[in-house]
Amino acid sequence: MRSDDRSTPALAAATAMVEELARAGVRHVCIAPGARSGPLTLATALHPTLRDWMVVDERSAGFFALGMARQLGAPVAVLCTSGTAAANLLPAVVEASLSEVPLIVLTADRPPELRDCAAPQTIDQVRIYGSHVRWATDLPAPSADVDLDAYYRRIVCRAVATAMESRRGPVHVNVPFREPLLPEGGMPVRASEVSEVPPAMVVPSAVPQLDERTAHALAAALGREERGLVLCGPRAGLEGQGALVRDLAARLGWPILADPLSGVRFGGCDAVPQIDTYDVLLRDRRFCDEHVPRAVLQLGAPPVSKALGQYLAAHSLSAHVVVASPGTWPDPTHAATTLVHAEGVATVRALCAGLPPSVMETEWAHAWQNAGHHARTVLDERLAAESTLFEGKIAAEVVARLPADAVLHVGNSMPVRDLDMFGRARPAELRVDGNRGANGIDGVLSSALGAAAVSGRPTLLVVGDLSFLHDLGGLQIAARHALNAVVIVVNNDGGGVFSFLPFADDSDVFERCFATPHGLDLASAVTLGRGRHHRVRDWRSFGEVVDGALVTPGLDVIEVPSDRDVNARLHREYVAAVHAGLPGLNGVPTRSDVA
Amino acid sequence: MRSDDRSTPALAAATAMVEELARAGVRHVCIAPGARSGPLTLATALHPTLRDWMVVDERSAGFFALGMARQLGAPVAVLCTSGTAAANLLPAVVEASLSEVPLIVLTADRPPELRDCAAPQTIDQVRIYGSHVRWATDLPAPSADVDLDAYYRRIVCRAVATAMESRRGPVHVNVPFREPLLPEGGMPVRASEVSEVPPAMVVPSAVPQLDERTAHALAAALGREERGLVLCGPRAGLEGQGALVRDLAARLGWPILADPLSGVRFGGCDAVPQIDTYDVLLRDRRFCDEHVPRAVLQLGAPPVSKALGQYLAAHSLSAHVVVASPGTWPDPTHAATTLVHAEGVATVRALCAGLPPSVMETEWAHAWQNAGHHARTVLDERLAAESTLFEGKIAAEVVARLPADAVLHVGNSMPVRDLDMFGRARPAELRVDGNRGANGIDGVLSSALGAAAVSGRPTLLVVGDLSFLHDLGGLQIAARHALNAVVIVVNNDGGGVFSFLPFADDSDVFERCFATPHGLDLASAVTLGRGRHHRVRDWRSFGEVVDGALVTPGLDVIEVPSDRDVNARLHREYVAAVHAGLPGLNGVPTRSDVA
Repeated sequence: MRSDDRSTPALAAATAMVEELARAGVRHVCIAPGARSGPLTLATALHPTLRDWMVVDERSAGFFALGMARQLGAPVAVLCTSGTAAANLLPAVVEASLSEVPLIVLTADRPPELRDCAAPQTIDQVRIYGSHVRWATDLPAPSADVDLDAYYRRIVCRAVATAMESRRGPVHVNVPFREPLLPEGGMPVRASEVSEVPPAMVVPSAVPQLDERTAHALAAALGREERGLVLCGPRAGLEGQGALVRDLAARLGWPILADPLSGVRFGGCDAVPQIDTYDVLLRDRRFCDEHVPRAVLQLGAPPVSKALGQYLAAHSLSAHVVVASPGTWPDPTHAATTLVHAEGVATVRALCAGLPPSVMETEWAHAWQNAGHHARTVLDERLAAESTLFEGKIAAEVVARLPADAVLHVGNSMPVRDLDMFGRARPAELRVDGNRGANGIDGVLSSALGAAAVSGRPTLLVVGDLSFLHDLGGLQIAARHALNAVVIVVNNDGGGVFSFLPFADDSDVFERCFATPHGLDLASAVTLGRGRHHRVRDWRSFGEVVDGALVTPGLDVIEVPSDRDVNARLHREYVAAVHAGLPGLNGVPTRSDVA
Repeated sequence: MRSDDRSTPALAAATAMVEELARAGVRHVCIAPGARSGPLTLATALHPTLRDWMVVDERSAGFFALGMARQLGAPVAVLCTSGTAAANLLPAVVEASLSEVPLIVLTADRPPELRDCAAPQTIDQVRIYGSHVRWATDLPAPSADVDLDAYYRRIVCRAVATAMESRRGPVHVNVPFREPLLPEGGMPVRASEVSEVPPAMVVPSAVPQLDERTAHALAAALGREERGLVLCGPRAGLEGQGALVRDLAARLGWPILADPLSGVRFGGCDAVPQIDTYDVLLRDRRFCDEHVPRAVLQLGAPPVSKALGQYLAAHSLSAHVVVASPGTWPDPTHAATTLVHAEGVATVRALCAGLPPSVMETEWAHAWQNAGHHARTVLDERLAAESTLFEGKIAAEVVARLPADAVLHVGNSMPVRDLDMFGRARPAELRVDGNRGANGIDGVLSSALGAAAVSGRPTLLVVGDLSFLHDLGGLQIAARHALNAVVIVVNNDGGGVFSFLPFADDSDVFERCFATPHGLDLASAVTLGRGRHHRVRDWRSFGEVVDGALVTPGLDVIEVPSDRDVNARLHREYVAAVHAGLPGLNGVPTRSDVA
């Protein structure tokens, strides 16, 4: 390795790796401080194009990097020192794996001779992320007399390429360093060479696609079914491709049921066959019985709607076609008839090419449109008249208020479900993200802040109080890096989602062990994160504060108090109101029924 | 399984498992809320003798349980729901493994048919803790038509027994549940049967011991060396056994160098050959050269002192005997000549039995005593006169002020090193603990609070600001459970330990990427945790606040501001002052030299 009196073998190797990270397309490195990782930290800090983001808590750093990588659609590196530091990254690694986000995890380590013999801050880091990374390797420690420069560079190329190949995801490079880690007596002022050179090795991405004949046959088979649905779930690869999906739906004559995280729900005009109220409609037993599907095209992962999942599971379909990334198997009901392991946009295009430009509106589509229109009207009217700080209205208000270039992050448990139920399709684009790989309540704030750090656009998170409190490390990131973001904390003093479980009641045990109220003062948490805390009391102040926060630099945390019991009751009332007025139907004949 | 209309197969199985936990000796269950884990949560809550501790953040819950288990020397269970919840436990599991603490990790899971197919909140939890648990199993999901009651009960017996066997440590039971998880319409009011019955299966602990002949031969070999040292490290199993160790040292005629976490440093009288200043002495090259050891008896893991480690590595010993738990290999310098995999107390007793009652004081022992006395005098004088809020004096003051029944927890990085250097041996017992398995800065607060929750004694933690901020989840535990503890936060606005690294300088890069100052207002964090915040300005207020906090219920957080550069300079000055006055030596002849 290149090494002189102002370097060490460790720093030379780290510099090669970091140069290659940059050449392979990485722009951001989230770094938790540490000594053993010093060579990689310093090489990053001295690199001319890499941006380093110091984050003390590795768990938050992992989610912060995840949020960046998802927002950018590009690999982001996260770097930590040896020991439990590496263990703290596991939650973000798991989420990155399931939500298919390219994360380059670099963990510094002691060399093999210091492992498993009680050396300080040394744990077994080899393959510590188990099945949750696409690839893992444990490098040999740099030394002065062995030139591994080409190897280290290609390892980084391979790590980035593997993270970006379909199926995207996290990779783990364990990097042992021997002492001396860095030159004694101070920091070198320059580590990296000019980086305007290509990477050591290029690994072009290939897009997995169906061949034309298979695609046409599949399109023809789907086209024969009248009673079909186009389901758009997360990870369909269709962000900003709503027009393409609508074209396919028009050719099939099928309604679109688009999850809010599909990239398809928002940004269309009103004339398209999207039913944005399916989650409410499908909670009605009669509606489900009267609208029996025959075929489903599921793009991406299953949508969040539990009602939709139960509706599909209750009916035997002639075709349940799933299009998803290679290596995934998004079929939790074990009902798929065809699984297409191919890229979303290419597949939708190929299916379009096998179908006529459009079909006449069928009774099936018409019935869905009618029901959808009814549900939308009832919901809109009730929401407009709603004076209670009902959590469903928060979702509706946020969608209505965010500008077209905004980024919306939603927390798990209730916020994503409320967005699904109350998030009205709108003409303006709206980018929506969330940790919907593992659906954890952890790391939500840090992930949203990662998006905010690199989006350059208004970024708003809606999150529950437990999730917010789970990730106070995220507030420290906001403080350290003076991030610009708006966080709406729906504070129902505990786990609101539990109130919707079938075993929920008002017993002391339920309250203490499931709802887990905390009574904590969120304002002091916000102060710690150097944010502005707002507590809204009514919808007027909500609107003013949200609108103001969206155009004000820095962190705004808007606390919206909610009562869990009232909220659960209002949810039931909204659903009941939609169902009460649903137009009665006596079954819609399908083409095959008619034949 | 027993199951009726007020139960489910899941709840019946969970009840059996929880009953068995209690019968096998578990008293405390730390629970992070969740739905899938509901059966185990409810069974715990309804159990007549188990104490449940709700903790929202699983990472903190894991460390909280770890702190409890270490304090009690008994198994403690930690329970979480499916998904990344389980991943968040990894840091505490790693620490429990390396620090040999019996932790029973119960993770709820979806059943196999919902795994790896995009079902919500489902990740690969099977063996998720990899090499970091002593044992892991993935249970079959309970069902109504298969009676696995005996199996579930024995699995729990096995888990607890495995966690408690030497080498103690964490075990992982993955528990899948199918729906319905709990009876619809509310919580059953009673789940557990009377628990005053023995466990399903008894697994008596056997103590690994050397046979008498081997022990006597080893004792005789050690007894032939004059220039020996008894090193007491963490995990020697010698808490409260100082008298026994002093007896052995007297028989050998060797000084005792006892790490503050060894359980031997504090609680002896002054007349014993303990050198509590070895860390300062061994930083002096001349002292090291003039005090060449021939033999070492290392009880437990290597002590924290880096100077001691380097001193040992620099000399080739005729005997380096390590006594440690089976399955460990605490020999980072690869210098051990004998590794005794046996229990500490039994081994020390056996060695004593093989030696004469005492030996005459040798020149070797005398030289160490002289040097130790000198160092102690210099340190005590300087500390007494010290007006700066020097971090080393915090350690000294804490040791001086804590009552005999107190529990002292120390954070990693600087607090444990300062305690090693400045923690004066004292006649009164003092229980000292810390996360010295992996030496992470994570989970320190939660671990200390776990000790506080079950110790029933004054419990004080000394922790750095970065470590404190890493674990704000711990403050939420203190708030929820109204815990009684004193936390001293040494606030040097960043990572003070980095100032002691050989590559430290005053560059912007060093400050930003290693020291990582945050400027955060700790008072607001304390407010969030419903604690009292104190910021001390001088030693008088320090003493008053500490003394007051120790006798006041609730959480007191005492912030002591420190300047990293001043602190590093004072450290150097204290060391230099000791070295400057060290009595000159020209080598102490050993018996073999004389012969």
